[in-house]
Amino acid sequence: MRGLFITLEGPEGAGKTTNRAYLAEQLQAQGLEVMLTREPGGTPLAEQIREILLAPHDEPMSVDTELLLMFAARAQHLAQVIKPALAEGKIVICDRFTDATYAYQGGGRGLDCSRIAVLEQFVQGDLRPDLTLLFDLPVADGMARAVARGKLDRFELEQHNFFEAVRQSYLQRAQDAPERFRLVNAQQTLPEVQKSLDVHLVEIMSRARG
Amino acid sequence: MRGLFITLEGPEGAGKTTNRAYLAEQLQAQGLEVMLTREPGGTPLAEQIREILLAPHDEPMSVDTELLLMFAARAQHLAQVIKPALAEGKIVICDRFTDATYAYQGGGRGLDCSRIAVLEQFVQGDLRPDLTLLFDLPVADGMARAVARGKLDRFELEQHNFFEAVRQSYLQRAQDAPERFRLVNAQQTLPEVQKSLDVHLVEIMSRARG
Repeated sequence: MRGLFITLEGPEGAGKTTNRAYLAEQLQAQGLEVMLTREPGGTPLAEQIREILLAPHDEPMSVDTELLLMFAARAQHLAQVIKPALAEGKIVICDRFTDATYAYQGGGRGLDCSRIAVLEQFVQGDLRPDLTLLFDLPVADGMARAVARGKLDRFELEQHNFFEAVRQSYLQRAQDAPERFRLVNAQQTLPEVQKSLDVHLVEIMSRARG
Repeated sequence: MRGLFITLEGPEGAGKTTNRAYLAEQLQAQGLEVMLTREPGGTPLAEQIREILLAPHDEPMSVDTELLLMFAARAQHLAQVIKPALAEGKIVICDRFTDATYAYQGGGRGLDCSRIAVLEQFVQGDLRPDLTLLFDLPVADGMARAVARGKLDRFELEQHNFFEAVRQSYLQRAQDAPERFRLVNAQQTLPEVQKSLDVHLVEIMSRARG
């Protein structure tokens, strides 16, 4: 028995956290076991790596360093949390995973995607998400929401062009793998977003029981 | 103009730090520019990664995480310190480098060396040390010296078998690449060790001027 690995992707301010809780409640109400987690982080050690990644530094962080730290945290998260939960048949809902690496480090920073693919293969082997919900939002909307939340981290301090490249990279990946991605229009009101999530919940429940 | 990249390898307690200073003094006395550094670490950010690597954790660190953190620190060190210094024609003397990864994570932890080679290629491209001085010491001697120094880190807390595997892995690498490695018998007294280093210094000076 193997569980279901669901990832939520999209920019800050797209409602991933709120809707992750909504998805979990709905699935648990159906008697399904759910584990909520997030990246980078998800274990105490991986959260320490997250802190290094998100904190502004005096010294510029090389793109290779950023990428290796991201996958170091991921390796720990997979070994300690994700793989054991999937082996127990749970539905794992993870706020960001490797698609975010392709979007932020690949699209945003312009790092060659083939280099990301090397580390994806190194760390994950054949493991990929079963389903990815992409919360899509125009850049200006996401930035306004992130600013309203207060202090910005190292990524949130990037400029408009960076986030536009992140968004386009996400959308391109969704287009290239329609069997795995489900697009959620995060510009809608919360009740509207949850109504569209209900459609995906039917699919998730059916696959979890399949 | 490209400098010379010299690495010092071997266990704790083999005298790398003391002799690194000796090598630097001798080279500087000849008017050569030297930069001393160490791994994991060598920049403020890489030293933060070093702290995560060396501190004992409640949670077991996966071997992949350890390896990726090691190379994340190395990528930063290369970008910020080693490559700029070599480009300026300096002699870089680094206390531990990728041979240590093969010895500790490969030999010690039993990680497949082909996985280490993937990350070596990823981070370094074609960059390899020009010369590596391997300070060799029987395991019992190195452990006794490390214990005498006080509090042990996460690696120093390993058992005798681990260090024996590290030593054998170092010796094997030296045997496989005799053109790059020079073996130093670290069981000798300090004056004897420095006498044998004087031979290598002649070679280093000749190559630095070549």
